Amino acid sequence: MKIVICGAGNVAKFFCHRLSAQQEIEIVQVYARNSESARLIAESYQVPVIQQLADMRTDADAYILAVNDTAITTLGQQLPLAADAIVLHCAGSQPLQATGAGLEQSAVLWPIYSITPQAFDKEAVPLVVDAGPLAIAKAMQMARAISQQVFTANYEQRKYLHLNAVLVNNFVHHLLVVAENICQQEGLDFDILKPIVKQTIERMDSAGFAAAQTGPARRGDAPTMHQHLELMAQKPEWQAMYKVISDSIAMMYGGDGTGR
Amino acid sequence: MKIVICGAGNVAKFFCHRLSAQQEIEIVQVYARNSESARLIAESYQVPVIQQLADMRTDADAYILAVNDTAITTLGQQLPLAADAIVLHCAGSQPLQATGAGLEQSAVLWPIYSITPQAFDKEAVPLVVDAGPLAIAKAMQMARAISQQVFTANYEQRKYLHLNAVLVNNFVHHLLVVAENICQQEGLDFDILKPIVKQTIERMDSAGFAAAQTGPARRGDAPTMHQHLELMAQKPEWQAMYKVISDSIAMMYGGDGTGR
Repeated sequence: MKIVICGAGNVAKFFCHRLSAQQEIEIVQVYARNSESARLIAESYQVPVIQQLADMRTDADAYILAVNDTAITTLGQQLPLAADAIVLHCAGSQPLQATGAGLEQSAVLWPIYSITPQAFDKEAVPLVVDAGPLAIAKAMQMARAISQQVFTANYEQRKYLHLNAVLVNNFVHHLLVVAENICQQEGLDFDILKPIVKQTIERMDSAGFAAAQTGPARRGDAPTMHQHLELMAQKPEWQAMYKVISDSIAMMYGGDGTGR
Repeated sequence: MKIVICGAGNVAKFFCHRLSAQQEIEIVQVYARNSESARLIAESYQVPVIQQLADMRTDADAYILAVNDTAITTLGQQLPLAADAIVLHCAGSQPLQATGAGLEQSAVLWPIYSITPQAFDKEAVPLVVDAGPLAIAKAMQMARAISQQVFTANYEQRKYLHLNAVLVNNFVHHLLVVAENICQQEGLDFDILKPIVKQTIERMDSAGFAAAQTGPARRGDAPTMHQHLELMAQKPEWQAMYKVISDSIAMMYGGDGTGR
């Protein structure tokens, strides 16, 4: 399978890195407008790099749009597609048609992972595939070649997955940063908390995960919640966070919500 | 060192388990009012179990109150303490004096971890020690005998640590449960999200952790936040959570908070 990769950021490099290691796949070109990025990719992966759309191969089997969400459609519409070629974008929350090609030729290949250079060789990078009827076979072949964890999800499902990624990545990250800030402010070593964070995460894999919720909100311990809110008197935005998360826990488990 | 352990729950068993493996430490009694629990502890750890306070040894060096927060003081006041004995409680958010003994004889030995039987043999169970001037040496000796990760923290600091444990354990757990619920509702495999959760946690150990915050709230991506809120239209408590966490992220990084 002959592939053209468009883009020079971490996602483009991730696909270069993994696809270039596959025997049945040949990266025939990388399209990168920035000359320094282009040079680095050409060096790292020994692939031909082009900087002009006019130089793009017209005989590729698949074109990957690993560019900013806002640039996908404009670029996709300019690709010199053969009739049986497919176009893939990597933006989980965008519809298939964002490729700018016809629905049948369109696919999504979305890594649910923060793609940094450290992730290039990580085993566990799940790929979510969505595709029109003519594109699905090629898209799955590419996904399975480079990941052990391939899932399919339609546009509706991908929207919910994107929301979920915000909840479990961005929001969890923020809670950890707030805790780290509080530790610094009180002269405490953040390392004290790392084992319990890891324990929380390990529990995802056990049955009865939801039932294992503990803490003051779960048991309706209003005095403790009140004390915690007072400790954050200088940070109304953290207090607000504490209140609504406690409320949501109380709602889920039938607590009395007296955290307010 | 001769130790009496009061209690028959997981925390009491945790201390039995770890202290009974130490040469320089002898658990001389476990006090457990429930006869079934008492029998199990006696069997598991070959320690003498008593069910009456009147039978408690008066010559122990240390008494551990591994009982409910509300029972600590009442029990502590009834212990037959020698003048140089110390009393330890395990409730991180309670003051030293909660032991019911004098401040000088009091100590806290607080595992910052969810203590379940699976945790008994875990290496990484951090212990936080607080103690009056006469109790600190014995308390530290006990803590270091059973944990590689011993930290000291005074009452003020322990209150903040307790708040932090809620943020990084209870609240993170809740976000994961909400994501799991959304996956179930949309017919998605929660396993898709586990790698990115683990990645989020791994980043705690890297420099620039706070700066690594990403997501729609960080970049002020109002359309995405709006779409996510609409996906949770049936769950106002989840919407509220999404809004205030996004606001807190925007405040921390100077975003424009247009997630509202």
